[in-house]
Amino acid sequence: MSAQIELLPSSHAELVRELTQGFASSAIERDQRGGTPKAERDAIRVSGLLALSIPRQYGGQGANWETTLDVVRSFARADSSIAHVFGFHHLLLATVRQFGRPDQWEPWFEQSAQKNWFWGNALNPLDTRTVVQQFGNWYEFSGKKSFCSGALDSEMLVASGLHVQSGRLLIGAIPTSRTGITLYHDWNCFGQRQTDSGSALFEKVRVEESELLLDPGPLSTPFACLRPLLAQLIFVHMFLGIAEGAFEEAKHYTLNESRPWFKSPVKQASKDPHTLRHYGEFWVGLESVRLLLQQAVRRFDDAWARGEALDEAGRGRVAVAVATAKVAATRNGLDLSSRLFDVAGARSTHGALRLDRFWRNLRTQTLHDPVDYKLQELGDWAVNDEFPEPSFYS
Amino acid sequence: MSAQIELLPSSHAELVRELTQGFASSAIERDQRGGTPKAERDAIRVSGLLALSIPRQYGGQGANWETTLDVVRSFARADSSIAHVFGFHHLLLATVRQFGRPDQWEPWFEQSAQKNWFWGNALNPLDTRTVVQQFGNWYEFSGKKSFCSGALDSEMLVASGLHVQSGRLLIGAIPTSRTGITLYHDWNCFGQRQTDSGSALFEKVRVEESELLLDPGPLSTPFACLRPLLAQLIFVHMFLGIAEGAFEEAKHYTLNESRPWFKSPVKQASKDPHTLRHYGEFWVGLESVRLLLQQAVRRFDDAWARGEALDEAGRGRVAVAVATAKVAATRNGLDLSSRLFDVAGARSTHGALRLDRFWRNLRTQTLHDPVDYKLQELGDWAVNDEFPEPSFYS
Amino acid sequence: MSAQIELLPSSHAELVRELTQGFASSAIERDQRGGTPKAERDAIRVSGLLALSIPRQYGGQGANWETTLDVVRSFARADSSIAHVFGFHHLLLATVRQFGRPDQWEPWFEQSAQKNWFWGNALNPLDTRTVVQQFGNWYEFSGKKSFCSGALDSEMLVASGLHVQSGRLLIGAIPTSRTGITLYHDWNCFGQRQTDSGSALFEKVRVEESELLLDPGPLSTPFACLRPLLAQLIFVHMFLGIAEGAFEEAKHYTLNESRPWFKSPVKQASKDPHTLRHYGEFWVGLESVRLLLQQAVRRFDDAWARGEALDEAGRGRVAVAVATAKVAATRNGLDLSSRLFDVAGARSTHGALRLDRFWRNLRTQTLHDPVDYKLQELGDWAVNDEFPEPSFYS
Amino acid sequence: MSAQIELLPSSHAELVRELTQGFASSAIERDQRGGTPKAERDAIRVSGLLALSIPRQYGGQGANWETTLDVVRSFARADSSIAHVFGFHHLLLATVRQFGRPDQWEPWFEQSAQKNWFWGNALNPLDTRTVVQQFGNWYEFSGKKSFCSGALDSEMLVASGLHVQSGRLLIGAIPTSRTGITLYHDWNCFGQRQTDSGSALFEKVRVEESELLLDPGPLSTPFACLRPLLAQLIFVHMFLGIAEGAFEEAKHYTLNESRPWFKSPVKQASKDPHTLRHYGEFWVGLESVRLLLQQAVRRFDDAWARGEALDEAGRGRVAVAVATAKVAATRNGLDLSSRLFDVAGARSTHGALRLDRFWRNLRTQTLHDPVDYKLQELGDWAVNDEFPEPSFYS
Repeated sequence: MSAQIELLPSSHAELVRELTQGFASSAIERDQRGGTPKAERDAIRVSGLLALSIPRQYGGQGANWETTLDVVRSFARADSSIAHVFGFHHLLLATVRQFGRPDQWEPWFEQSAQKNWFWGNALNPLDTRTVVQQFGNWYEFSGKKSFCSGALDSEMLVASGLHVQSGRLLIGAIPTSRTGITLYHDWNCFGQRQTDSGSALFEKVRVEESELLLDPGPLSTPFACLRPLLAQLIFVHMFLGIAEGAFEEAKHYTLNESRPWFKSPVKQASKDPHTLRHYGEFWVGLESVRLLLQQAVRRFDDAWARGEALDEAGRGRVAVAVATAKVAATRNGLDLSSRLFDVAGARSTHGALRLDRFWRNLRTQTLHDPVDYKLQELGDWAVNDEFPEPSFYS
Repeated sequence: MSAQIELLPSSHAELVRELTQGFASSAIERDQRGGTPKAERDAIRVSGLLALSIPRQYGGQGANWETTLDVVRSFARADSSIAHVFGFHHLLLATVRQFGRPDQWEPWFEQSAQKNWFWGNALNPLDTRTVVQQFGNWYEFSGKKSFCSGALDSEMLVASGLHVQSGRLLIGAIPTSRTGITLYHDWNCFGQRQTDSGSALFEKVRVEESELLLDPGPLSTPFACLRPLLAQLIFVHMFLGIAEGAFEEAKHYTLNESRPWFKSPVKQASKDPHTLRHYGEFWVGLESVRLLLQQAVRRFDDAWARGEALDEAGRGRVAVAVATAKVAATRNGLDLSSRLFDVAGARSTHGALRLDRFWRNLRTQTLHDPVDYKLQELGDWAVNDEFPEPSFYS
Repeated sequence: MSAQIELLPSSHAELVRELTQGFASSAIERDQRGGTPKAERDAIRVSGLLALSIPRQYGGQGANWETTLDVVRSFARADSSIAHVFGFHHLLLATVRQFGRPDQWEPWFEQSAQKNWFWGNALNPLDTRTVVQQFGNWYEFSGKKSFCSGALDSEMLVASGLHVQSGRLLIGAIPTSRTGITLYHDWNCFGQRQTDSGSALFEKVRVEESELLLDPGPLSTPFACLRPLLAQLIFVHMFLGIAEGAFEEAKHYTLNESRPWFKSPVKQASKDPHTLRHYGEFWVGLESVRLLLQQAVRRFDDAWARGEALDEAGRGRVAVAVATAKVAATRNGLDLSSRLFDVAGARSTHGALRLDRFWRNLRTQTLHDPVDYKLQELGDWAVNDEFPEPSFYS
Repeated sequence: MSAQIELLPSSHAELVRELTQGFASSAIERDQRGGTPKAERDAIRVSGLLALSIPRQYGGQGANWETTLDVVRSFARADSSIAHVFGFHHLLLATVRQFGRPDQWEPWFEQSAQKNWFWGNALNPLDTRTVVQQFGNWYEFSGKKSFCSGALDSEMLVASGLHVQSGRLLIGAIPTSRTGITLYHDWNCFGQRQTDSGSALFEKVRVEESELLLDPGPLSTPFACLRPLLAQLIFVHMFLGIAEGAFEEAKHYTLNESRPWFKSPVKQASKDPHTLRHYGEFWVGLESVRLLLQQAVRRFDDAWARGEALDEAGRGRVAVAVATAKVAATRNGLDLSSRLFDVAGARSTHGALRLDRFWRNLRTQTLHDPVDYKLQELGDWAVNDEFPEPSFYS
């Protein structure tokens, strides 16, 4: 992987910029088409960025989460589907690190870095249809599973199932090509159209005990409980990236295409007093989210660095910052991606521009878990001084 | 047209219901496809509803505007594209009535009622590319024109152009099949996808003086100045219909498909406290718009009934009521059609449902003219006691 | 009461206008002072308006509720404390009508009309400190009670207590001067400062069985369950009146005192584009509330006219309309009474104007019962088709 | 001033805490009373905090602006009037530093630190009634001036007037006791009641040329143009402090006094789902403002440190950050200080608590200059990449 070895901070930024521009150039067409963004996924493979969060001693680039997730946000400005699967790839690497033993994740990290593996998701704790039978030291996963983002065209899967004997959630890391796994091309939502978040079928899929993340296991320690916060942080980076992409498109359109209304006191659309007010509000919203997100990811990096020394209060402070950023990013983003048309004007609804995709992508992804319950958690913190209770969503 | 003759109030409602159900059954597929809703337009032709606003003495059904526009709103619950072209058909009949002489519009009314003519729009005062040359008592229209809603598959067109000699706006009513008119299938916006609001080309189209609406002419009297208010009223009926359609879909989904979040204190999604609050807010918004619209359309019917006896203050009071309803319908509708997903949940974004179409349709149509300038007009009324200045948009 | 007999619709409006102007002239000073508006209460006594809602056969003016509550709204534009006690006077007359027997309320009505009695409130179902002991056919009320609006300077009281023997709420109508009743001058809130909503003490107050409203009793029938809706309607009329008063003051100030900001493109404050937008939004809000309130009070009058023939669904439809109007009036009013300063400017905060009183009055009174739970009720109606459950607050 | 010499960071925080508690204990009574908070001003004098922003070489404590303004915010949690005059004292010290020559401000700084001088404001560029006549090397100020915050009970004044000969704004620093200056006790607004922002009269007040800030003069360089940004930053610290104070009072009331509504599913008011949502929204708002303000004050400190090397773009970036924080603080603060009653309940409007003072103070102070025009500036930055044009308000 010479590409990785040579990767320098400045060339890294340039690399991300080039990839993002490439994604942008086909984003409109791919939003229409849906399906797997195979060429783009391969471009990411070649770039070496799949090893971005992997520590250097395992052949990765050793980036912290602030750096890694900044790439998610950059991608999301152009294409939030690719941002999603790229972010989730790193989440799944973090998952095996947090829930498993070093003798498990160390070789996975090394191989991922060496072979540019793409990891996909088949972990969905609210979907209880996949069950696990235990046979001595191997297990059998059977059943359906929905919302398997990035599973298609992946090399590795993190999959969950309910242990028949104990009712416990078991999570394993297995090659996507393992016999018995069928991934369906059935993802079809009005937004996030290339995340391949379709369904999977497990038919007597054999999983070795060594592939199960039993020690320390899911959400077992404050450090392991950072995992859902990383998932949420990825979402917030996507939300902000989408909003920033929408803002840039709106600005470009206002400056280059929009005409002032015939009642406007000015000759340039971008100087209309009402248009200026909208942009002023967009700016205040974006800046708020940028700072809330920066605070959240930095607290996350600090907590991550503490590893198993992290205590519940330390984890709780990260959870509060992440939830705060998420609420703000959700609300500001939905507002901006709908209101941008008020500053761009009627002709900006032209189908060829597909400027509605920002709203569609954000509207789809912001429903992952309800913002009302995030607010309730934050309220519990604000008035009762209680941290959010760790779960796969908090 | 025996269908019309037999039309009774109760059967009329039933007829609208049947048509609406028919439109609803194919709305999702047609939203995807775009293009002309030929079968649906023909069903409207057969229904006799194209003569709904035509007075009985000319063979029509003599409905007032409240009744006529209520059909627009009903259609919009299922399909706001059809609602648009149906509403505009009646707007164009009103246009020849308001801007022309009785010896012009009376035969047009009779023929329209008798032959179920569909009228289409080629009147766009802000698009100045079509020019009119005068040759004795005939005229020649030449040039391009955008946003010609419902022109395709119409029998008659209302078309505008700038008089070369005087710079004045001239408006004519001509058969769509007149030599020299080309209508393009180039409408492609992310919403209102079957309004055929594409472009037209006029190449030396001959228009007789008897086809021009010169007496009293466009926006010439307070009564003639009701025309843009009727256009705006049609929009508000569409906006409310879209919001009501979105509300019904959301309600159905919440009741039948949604599951309460795992943190919810209740077992039915429809009893979740946050979900109830959202629905409560939807209700307050919808009721407000319903009453504001009712006030506006009733004031409009009263003003219409006064005909040329209407004075500027009488027209102004209608304008205020229409603008008020429009602002409320725009804001409440956009809010509801985006927020409905918060009460329906993540799975309601499934592509097969196309529940995003409510937001897409509303977002597209609400940009016809800027809501910020409607608010400014209302402010001028509220604080300075000044009525909106009549224009093609106010 | 010759004044009443001669009362004609036009003179009635003039009378209300004169009273309102009188209240307005001292409103600022009385807002500062607090306490009982004795002179103003006496002016109302003299006006005959205390008999406004009393049917003609009992010597009253026979106004319906729309007319009666319109006076509440008029008063509230100038002084919402007086509006409150005036509205509650009529509420308490309605209470004895709804909860009691004709042989009870008919003489009370006649005497009230003849002697211009002012009725005051000592009914507070959530305050359970007042208990009732039964002794044969008489009863003894003992204990404290808070929020007794308009009890001071009243001739009659409607008082509630918990029946020791049965735990049931008992309500009686008694002369305010009855031995054992002490009314405290201890009302002191930052708003609604002259409602005398202080506390009362009952010390072995003897109440005859004939003074208790046992047949049909409180909230016993759909008709009796209109009582809390009348209370809520009075609030909404107050809220709208306050907002309209605030709007008028803001308008007057903007037109006569405000100066445009030095960056404004215009020379008159009232023509500033941002100021116009605020006023446009105020207008849309006020119009919405006016129509929602009109709908609610008309439904209420219809239901009232049906008397004991009213069924639960009929009562439910009134409840929905009242709650809808209340939510809208609360939100629009709070917004307007805070935002008015943005259109009036810094100098409008001068203490001599006390323009903050609109917000203070509204903020105080809108807390009577939580708007969040009104929204929840409306949500239950909107999504589950369930009417609000009758209580003293719904 | 041994107090200052011994001042250590930890003791400094303790000192501020003690002062704040002292202010809090009498804030309610003083809000009612208005007038000069003489005892509190003297407590600040004794504390040494008037020298907080004065560099150590002039006998001050050498705090940067982040530290200095954090005290403003702390004071504002308890009493935003005192926060105002304390903040303005430091603003006026900065003013002579930015607009004058070192041989002018160095002795003023030394004397201020040594004698605990309080500086007051008589600089109001929009009030043009005070004129300046030049006589050789001395000048005469004559005329009225409004909004002179903190002028009463001050030792030094910064005063402005229009130069008769040139029409230029002249600013001088003079002892408050100078012959010819009359300060009126006529400040009376519904908020910020102890800022003494009343009027002043200058009657032939002699000002030496050495007391005029002519070199470099007002708003003469990018560094000098930081002055209005410091004024705005003081406001934002006050706004946030007020909001935090309101939040703390609301929280205390909810936890200790509020009762859940009888329809609530919970037994503690602080666990009600709607209450939690409100608090969640309060939290998101407060956190946003905290981070925006931190960004703004740090950019300000950086720019300040660059001194006359600061360029227009550097100044512009501070201006954008300050305006962003101001808009967010204004909106979130007004929302929180009005909505707090929804989570505290009806009894929290009791006059003895004066909890309305947060809204009254914020509503008054946020009108200093219109938030609409701040938004317009931010819009110009966001869409046109133009920095706010320096003025006394931007």
